[in-house]
Amino acid sequence: MFEIDRNSKVLLVDQIRNAIISRIEAFQWVRGSRLPSVRALSKQLGVSIFTVSSAYEDLVARQIIESRPGAGYYILASGPADTGKDAERMIPPSSLHAGFLYRALDPSQYDFPVSSGYLPPSWLADAVPASVTGRLIRNTLSCSVPAPAAGSQELRSVIAKKLRELQINASSTQIVVTIGATHAFSLIRNMMLEPGDYLLVEDPSYLLLQLKLIKDRDFNIITVPRTHDGPDLEVMEEMVARYRPKLFLTQTLIHNPTGGNTSPAKGFRILSLAQKYDFHIVEDDIFGALCTKQTLRLSSLDEWNRTFYLSGFSKVLSPALRLGYVVAPPVFVERLVEQKMYNVLCGSSLDETIVAYTLESGRYQHHLDALRQRVMHERIRARDWLTKVGVEIDEGVVEGLFIWARFPAHVDLRRLIEEAHDARIFLAPGSLFSNTRGYDQYIRLNVSHCNDIRFRQFVADHLCSETASA
Amino acid sequence: MFEIDRNSKVLLVDQIRNAIISRIEAFQWVRGSRLPSVRALSKQLGVSIFTVSSAYEDLVARQIIESRPGAGYYILASGPADTGKDAERMIPPSSLHAGFLYRALDPSQYDFPVSSGYLPPSWLADAVPASVTGRLIRNTLSCSVPAPAAGSQELRSVIAKKLRELQINASSTQIVVTIGATHAFSLIRNMMLEPGDYLLVEDPSYLLLQLKLIKDRDFNIITVPRTHDGPDLEVMEEMVARYRPKLFLTQTLIHNPTGGNTSPAKGFRILSLAQKYDFHIVEDDIFGALCTKQTLRLSSLDEWNRTFYLSGFSKVLSPALRLGYVVAPPVFVERLVEQKMYNVLCGSSLDETIVAYTLESGRYQHHLDALRQRVMHERIRARDWLTKVGVEIDEGVVEGLFIWARFPAHVDLRRLIEEAHDARIFLAPGSLFSNTRGYDQYIRLNVSHCNDIRFRQFVADHLCSETASA
Repeated sequence: MFEIDRNSKVLLVDQIRNAIISRIEAFQWVRGSRLPSVRALSKQLGVSIFTVSSAYEDLVARQIIESRPGAGYYILASGPADTGKDAERMIPPSSLHAGFLYRALDPSQYDFPVSSGYLPPSWLADAVPASVTGRLIRNTLSCSVPAPAAGSQELRSVIAKKLRELQINASSTQIVVTIGATHAFSLIRNMMLEPGDYLLVEDPSYLLLQLKLIKDRDFNIITVPRTHDGPDLEVMEEMVARYRPKLFLTQTLIHNPTGGNTSPAKGFRILSLAQKYDFHIVEDDIFGALCTKQTLRLSSLDEWNRTFYLSGFSKVLSPALRLGYVVAPPVFVERLVEQKMYNVLCGSSLDETIVAYTLESGRYQHHLDALRQRVMHERIRARDWLTKVGVEIDEGVVEGLFIWARFPAHVDLRRLIEEAHDARIFLAPGSLFSNTRGYDQYIRLNVSHCNDIRFRQFVADHLCSETASA
Repeated sequence: MFEIDRNSKVLLVDQIRNAIISRIEAFQWVRGSRLPSVRALSKQLGVSIFTVSSAYEDLVARQIIESRPGAGYYILASGPADTGKDAERMIPPSSLHAGFLYRALDPSQYDFPVSSGYLPPSWLADAVPASVTGRLIRNTLSCSVPAPAAGSQELRSVIAKKLRELQINASSTQIVVTIGATHAFSLIRNMMLEPGDYLLVEDPSYLLLQLKLIKDRDFNIITVPRTHDGPDLEVMEEMVARYRPKLFLTQTLIHNPTGGNTSPAKGFRILSLAQKYDFHIVEDDIFGALCTKQTLRLSSLDEWNRTFYLSGFSKVLSPALRLGYVVAPPVFVERLVEQKMYNVLCGSSLDETIVAYTLESGRYQHHLDALRQRVMHERIRARDWLTKVGVEIDEGVVEGLFIWARFPAHVDLRRLIEEAHDARIFLAPGSLFSNTRGYDQYIRLNVSHCNDIRFRQFVADHLCSETASA
């Protein structure tokens, strides 16, 4: 459960109360569930019944738990309504996947965001320098009017130009600017899926994590195993033949979390399956800009018969700006804009102006080149060290932000992650990204955050103590 | 239909082609529908069959219309895929409501946005001065990290503080920052409505226009007439008793488009109905900051039993920033954050930083005070002039951005709006905001845009010529 420190100057009552709050915030104790009885907890901790029941009453007064006469104490479903300073901080959602993403977004919660999906702010500072942005805003009149529903013409044109450099040929009229890549996917989903439809997604996959955030009543999710070079095509053909999904979601390059690329040959076969079984493809290319080797996307092969391409700028430009986009087959563009207007009306013309300006500037390409090198450098360092301490890594994956790390079987990963949380280290269990139990021994590591000496020390200590106790 | 000018230097073929494109863009000719036959149009315009069929073939080549052998020419459902300079401009969606909003957002389409929902950029320049924003961005480190899913703590705290000045008592933990007010409404809808549920909305209403953007398969929309002091309560009780809606959407103050306020007595009775018939209320207060007289909101009365409060900053601060928020009853906060993460993950921390800073500064209150005076001044000018030329205005409505103008019965409003479009004047027909035919003679006018002498001239010319021809 949790331990108390009798030598601490903090009162036992306060220690117990704080430990409970921290467990709730760390999604270890789920809202709505019952707390241990006063008697059981006092026995377990070796403290008086009075101490535990005082701690519980304090939590009741703070509207964090409630007493149900005859049934015990329950964690309240929602956070406290108190307006005191401490209570002002919002408690993360209690559901596992939402709680994870909530924490991942709030950098103040951890000192070491080792499983974060973002690069460190300092790595991005040269891309959108505050001085340049400041000057831009002072000189730009277009910031005082709303953004067009499809996004500004300037931004859509420069995106089309940048895509041509990746051998993706699209007219700017096919591009719909979105709040981010998540939003892009959400709009496509709303447009394409009717109640009862099937949606095929890779397992493991960040997109699967995203889909598990809430129970969407409108469609069914089915999965295909992701191997090192793309989806398992045998299983995929079985699944599409049986369920006839409307959409297949995939990350061709630098798949999140496994890091692999879909081979061109598999890409071709995926498109053939799409033709044969009449489904559309959503190609999420959010990390593609970090690719140093392969560059072939499904969208280049398909050229807008069956493929939606989506990407964004939070990873390689700035997580502070929320900007993504969809390139849609022409026949879907108008309905996609309608979906966007129904959902958010339009985007931020301030953000659109800044990104359009940055992409146009020579700075962007220079920034990307340096970023790729830096990520690669840290990746090699992280891989070498992890391998040395006994963490398994797929040797076929050689680039990108993530290492999909398999920890030795003797390590209690649940405990490792809990202790990391207490040490203000953010770790994402592999199980979050999967519908199976096959990734329970994995953690997604971000190479830009995992070479810190304190994280290494934490892992080393843990692996050694586990080995010793095994 | 349209006229051609035989004295023009523009070729007849080009005149016909351009007139057709302009009709499609002005949502007068609906995509997917059939064009007049070549023979009929040539007869009507008094030009040769060869001229018309050349214009049609040109449009086919531009992928704007298609020829269906044996059936005639049809307007294509989607825009051209051509990448030529002219074709890069996206064609507005063909559906009436989406097309209207699409145009309303793109200021380059009109010289006189007389029916726009926004204030002129120059009226807002003092609120978020580019110089201050530029300096802020250069000095603010927090712009390089993602925004927390619920919104930044700074912004949520300052919103809670500002709301207390309106006698709305909410903890910052109840506040979820959204992309804008449209987004706020969208998240509440997704959270609260199950398939088959009923949603009650006022008629006329901007919210009804928004709901008609796409055919949402999940719920049914029912309406209650909006009178000058709020919804018609007799009809409302009938509707809620019969259909048992889950949600009632309303704008208590400065209702869009009619401009009226819901009286406190009606507000109390609406809350009583909500209790009796067990529904929740969404109070959209997007224009409330412009109120000079009444200030009582339903949220102040209810204090978070049954009311969601939503607002945003695009109207009174800057349409370039996309920022709104919901204050939710505590029990719904967590699920609302999950909905937001599922939909967009998080917002723009750049926009959130700018708005939080602006609200904290003394400048905001000063800006609002001046804005209210300016709106009131222009309102009086507009009302006086419109009344003089025979336009009817509800005398009970005395404040806010909109005049819900009833044009004399002899005026062909459809023609007026078409001719306004040709003169680059943007007018919103009342029928857009209603499910009935009762507002076909109305136009929503924005007082900040309708005192321009050229608009007055246009209206005067039109009313006179109509009178003359009547």
